[in-house]
Amino acid sequence: MMTFPVIASTHNPALAAELTLAINQKTKPLASLGRLESLAHQIGLIQRTCTPVLSESCIFIFAGDHGVVAEGVSAFPQEVTWQMVENFLAGGAAINVFAQQNKMALAIIDAGVNHDFGVRQGLHDLKIAHGTANFAQAAAMSQTQCQQALQNGMNLLRDFKGQLVGFGEMGIGNTTSAAALMHAVTGLDIALCVGAGTGLDATGIAHKQSVIESAVGLHGQQDDALTILACYGGFEIATMVGAMLAAAERGKILLIDGFIVTSALLIAAKIAPNIVDYCIFAHQSDESGHAKMLDFLGVKPLLKLDLRLGEGTGSALAYPLVQAAVNFLNQMATFASASVSEKEVLV
Amino acid sequence: MMTFPVIASTHNPALAAELTLAINQKTKPLASLGRLESLAHQIGLIQRTCTPVLSESCIFIFAGDHGVVAEGVSAFPQEVTWQMVENFLAGGAAINVFAQQNKMALAIIDAGVNHDFGVRQGLHDLKIAHGTANFAQAAAMSQTQCQQALQNGMNLLRDFKGQLVGFGEMGIGNTTSAAALMHAVTGLDIALCVGAGTGLDATGIAHKQSVIESAVGLHGQQDDALTILACYGGFEIATMVGAMLAAAERGKILLIDGFIVTSALLIAAKIAPNIVDYCIFAHQSDESGHAKMLDFLGVKPLLKLDLRLGEGTGSALAYPLVQAAVNFLNQMATFASASVSEKEVLV
Repeated sequence: MMTFPVIASTHNPALAAELTLAINQKTKPLASLGRLESLAHQIGLIQRTCTPVLSESCIFIFAGDHGVVAEGVSAFPQEVTWQMVENFLAGGAAINVFAQQNKMALAIIDAGVNHDFGVRQGLHDLKIAHGTANFAQAAAMSQTQCQQALQNGMNLLRDFKGQLVGFGEMGIGNTTSAAALMHAVTGLDIALCVGAGTGLDATGIAHKQSVIESAVGLHGQQDDALTILACYGGFEIATMVGAMLAAAERGKILLIDGFIVTSALLIAAKIAPNIVDYCIFAHQSDESGHAKMLDFLGVKPLLKLDLRLGEGTGSALAYPLVQAAVNFLNQMATFASASVSEKEVLV
Repeated sequence: MMTFPVIASTHNPALAAELTLAINQKTKPLASLGRLESLAHQIGLIQRTCTPVLSESCIFIFAGDHGVVAEGVSAFPQEVTWQMVENFLAGGAAINVFAQQNKMALAIIDAGVNHDFGVRQGLHDLKIAHGTANFAQAAAMSQTQCQQALQNGMNLLRDFKGQLVGFGEMGIGNTTSAAALMHAVTGLDIALCVGAGTGLDATGIAHKQSVIESAVGLHGQQDDALTILACYGGFEIATMVGAMLAAAERGKILLIDGFIVTSALLIAAKIAPNIVDYCIFAHQSDESGHAKMLDFLGVKPLLKLDLRLGEGTGSALAYPLVQAAVNFLNQMATFASASVSEKEVLV
């Protein structure tokens, strides 16, 4: 039996009151910074301070291949997974552009891509196997593989010095895996969990749904998080779950991207519900199931820009808003310090 | 009779097709960058190129006082206008923090604040008067003052070398002015145009509405943009209208903030409807009328973060998304350049 990190709740009424006071003393109408104020409040609770910091923020991109692509569930061929990893290493992908713009580091993890990269600068080799098994026929991974991937993810965060971890992924077929995980965790109808992924048409979506329905018939209803993860997960998803748990245990801010990253969080939150206290939800993806995942978790995303690219692009795009929340709390003048008159009571 | 800049439509089918092709060749599923793709497309049309640039972007904050505050329409006293201008000059306001974070310059314009600042580093003195007249009793400004403010705004942009102008404002009482302008331009019920501003309660909002209703009774229904502006506008709003017209004429990107900035745009668009082609709508403010202004213009904002601070804070917060749109278009690899396989037709 695996031992998981213990994740403390950030609940702290005394600090929460201090944060509210600090925010309300800033030179602005009460609550006029809206979502940025709740963000500053949350970050203060995560870091246990009224003067939070952000430095060396990094997006971790977890890549892996999926045996279920043999069922014809993706609009792109499997080789695109390793080709996009090469694109990340060469700096040509969307996530490279956005991370560079917003001064975030990138870490790229081969959690199980069906390709031999050799030793490469900037690539973490945490490969479990050359892709998962086809979950339409068998469990995607063994319990041993699943636990190894989780352990890899936990180890990965051990030396991370930054305060914020952005999560991203690459894996042809992984919206199918994520949809199956979503169904298993939330109990929502499979039809509500399945979307177009990288660009399926209605026929493709219907086929993807039928593949998941058959797989659920094969594996039966499961309630244990690790069993669900092993049945339907990808190596990139399982490694990400481990990294999420370790990041929250260590008091990091978790910046959650879209559909696949949130599917990993559904598993992590089933293991350790307090993890959600540490999560900022970057955006609501255009992938149809994502809004329902966010509803299930009871959370609101920062952006809604019809993105459905993955890679952690939503995390990178939302990052300046996280910075803005930290910066206004640390840098804005107060009514007293700037000699600005406060709100008057109208008579 | 004033002469206004001629603003050309950005309509250009040949360039639009080139831009679509350039966007679709990038290494990402088709349309998967959502709103950023339409943004890149729009910016390409504004700059007439498939390789747009952004540099020396600046937020212009227009400040002015409003005679209508004598009616008790604001939760804050009038002196907060000049106190906040001092806060901008000292670097302590929210807009200072966000502009600095996102590497935008700030220009602060005294268009008509009820205070003598003297000659100050970083403050443009374009003061028309020490605040407008109380529009509940008379036109807020004379036609001469209105035209001078417009001319001031047009002149202000003459030496601006950047490609993007963010708009912001400061003026206690200016949500009352903006609500009256909104009603006059859109014809929507006054009740739909009036909101809480810096923090009125329900009684305060009802009073604000009754002040505007009386004023509309006094001034009568007007259809001429300059007459409406002179009746209800502020000097900061009129100066902003001039700056918007000049910016669009010169092919700049206009980054539109919240309720007050959009009220200025309603006037500018009544004078020159093509101006909307040049506008990016940063956010939907929490001020209740703003969503309806955006609907009237037929546009969609980038952010919805329950902000209602003004100062151009929404513009500054949305700016990294504008940068991201330009950057992905210029910097991302194509399927061909990165040797990534394209979407396959599933059989």
